[in-house]
Amino acid sequence: MTVLILTGEEDVTADMVVVHLNASAVPVVRLDPADLTAGVALSGEYVHGSFRGHLSAGGRLVSVNGLRSVWVRRPGAPASRAAQPSAWLTEEAAQALYGMLRGSGARWMNHPDAAQRARHKPWQLRLAQRSGLPVPATLITTFPQAARAFAERFPDLVVKPVSGAHPQEPPRAVPTSRVAPDTDFGAVAYGPTLLQRRVAKRADIRLTVVGETMLAARKETPADADPDEVDVRFTSSATPWLPAEVPPRTAEAVRAYLREAQLSYGAFDFAEDADGTWWFLECNQSGQFGFVEVETGQPIARTIAEWLGRPRAPEEESVNGRRTVAP
Amino acid sequence: MTVLILTGEEDVTADMVVVHLNASAVPVVRLDPADLTAGVALSGEYVHGSFRGHLSAGGRLVSVNGLRSVWVRRPGAPASRAAQPSAWLTEEAAQALYGMLRGSGARWMNHPDAAQRARHKPWQLRLAQRSGLPVPATLITTFPQAARAFAERFPDLVVKPVSGAHPQEPPRAVPTSRVAPDTDFGAVAYGPTLLQRRVAKRADIRLTVVGETMLAARKETPADADPDEVDVRFTSSATPWLPAEVPPRTAEAVRAYLREAQLSYGAFDFAEDADGTWWFLECNQSGQFGFVEVETGQPIARTIAEWLGRPRAPEEESVNGRRTVAP
Repeated sequence: MTVLILTGEEDVTADMVVVHLNASAVPVVRLDPADLTAGVALSGEYVHGSFRGHLSAGGRLVSVNGLRSVWVRRPGAPASRAAQPSAWLTEEAAQALYGMLRGSGARWMNHPDAAQRARHKPWQLRLAQRSGLPVPATLITTFPQAARAFAERFPDLVVKPVSGAHPQEPPRAVPTSRVAPDTDFGAVAYGPTLLQRRVAKRADIRLTVVGETMLAARKETPADADPDEVDVRFTSSATPWLPAEVPPRTAEAVRAYLREAQLSYGAFDFAEDADGTWWFLECNQSGQFGFVEVETGQPIARTIAEWLGRPRAPEEESVNGRRTVAP
Repeated sequence: MTVLILTGEEDVTADMVVVHLNASAVPVVRLDPADLTAGVALSGEYVHGSFRGHLSAGGRLVSVNGLRSVWVRRPGAPASRAAQPSAWLTEEAAQALYGMLRGSGARWMNHPDAAQRARHKPWQLRLAQRSGLPVPATLITTFPQAARAFAERFPDLVVKPVSGAHPQEPPRAVPTSRVAPDTDFGAVAYGPTLLQRRVAKRADIRLTVVGETMLAARKETPADADPDEVDVRFTSSATPWLPAEVPPRTAEAVRAYLREAQLSYGAFDFAEDADGTWWFLECNQSGQFGFVEVETGQPIARTIAEWLGRPRAPEEESVNGRRTVAP
């Protein structure tokens, strides 16, 4: 049974995982949905109550029913590199490809529905609360008066985008930044604004979860750090990422979060405060892990390869992403 | 507790439902997400492990936690009528609004995830098969040779779009049409093509399902009908839509389909053959029902109003759309 990887041609992170799959002699087909109808072809037949599907890429033919897992890594827009691309062709190709794969019974990292839902930060915050993770006080609002009242209760605030970095190319990453004490908040009326109590942090935590495996990395905040530099992605700090232990209560809450979110991969960002509490900031279902693996030496790519390569139980079939026993 | 209806200003179908809700004295707030930041405002606060959210529209303030149901009828793109619209503002507003509503615990008609998934026709066909509905032999392919082989096995075919009518404005409805016997199929290589065995039909069936209630309508095919006119949406037939009984086995399969699809509303199209078998063609999760109600007198709008107005069990809370009991 084959592992299907959906990603672009230049993706060194995917390369890292493919190396491990090859070493374990797990068959892999890697394709970019952008190449549909030019290099990538598909066919699916629904006859007499059953389904048989095939994908062809790089001269290889693979059975859709025989997929053990699908890794949705960095796929291009379907058929966007076709001879005559169009929005309609992309829509048709997307429905054909993902519609077929959705009925394949394969395990997903991550299922498109779960991935889509997981992007919603308000939903993330609520799920984190319900899972038992500490969440810094947060307001999302278009009411200037609500923003002013919140700033009185929590004078030390950061502002960040509601939607986070958009997954499309080019990615629109907007840094989290500190709110000045004299901010007026009148502009809040023109667009939803996310305000969050700033956690006076001792360290940044990146917790990468692959299936049941948790790999945490910790980057200490230097004692002389500028408190206005709140976003670790945009600061150049000399302190390295180092492997860290996950507190048992946090591990339990993270498991609850991912179970409810139906995610098999998640990259959590936490801020560790002076008491050692990990405050939930976000969970990115497609978060990069290459930089953590390089700095910490943690075997993230290998763990992903093991998850993708795990054999599929024969009675498992999935229509919705939730695995169910076939009738 | 309030019913929230997301739709545009001019929506007579929504008007029909609102009349019934008003008659039952159920509070209703109707708003178009397109009006966000100009007429519609929102605010949500995550403090001390709990969430409190509000929406304001037309001078009325409604608690997000106090919503009994959300009807996603024909909403505009969030913030698209703002003073300075942009793709980024739409993304931010969409995440803020739907992200908050996703954590509200309200019942959905239909939940955005279920609605998104339900649009995939290959997934529909597989789910219909698994639910026990007869599906005409279907091929979705970019291989000309596969299309030719299929046409030899099933010489009487129709072709239709894989993605169906796109829900965006303006809707792109593409009619189903008959495949000429001498078709070459070479062009299949340039875009996924859906071929389906033509059902020699005695009638078209439209089955509207609202929660547990099924309302079927039947439109007889005239004896002198042109067999090339396969798409009832694009033919002008004098025969009316009349109420019909749902065969018990079909009813059971339809219930299984909607349960697995997690849809509370679905409009099924079937073709009834000479033996009286209902062949599954598609299930449209946002299918129109006004024309059926007008011709058959079936109380579809009232049934929707009753579903939306049903009180919410106090212990129910939902994060994912699946209703779960709060911990």
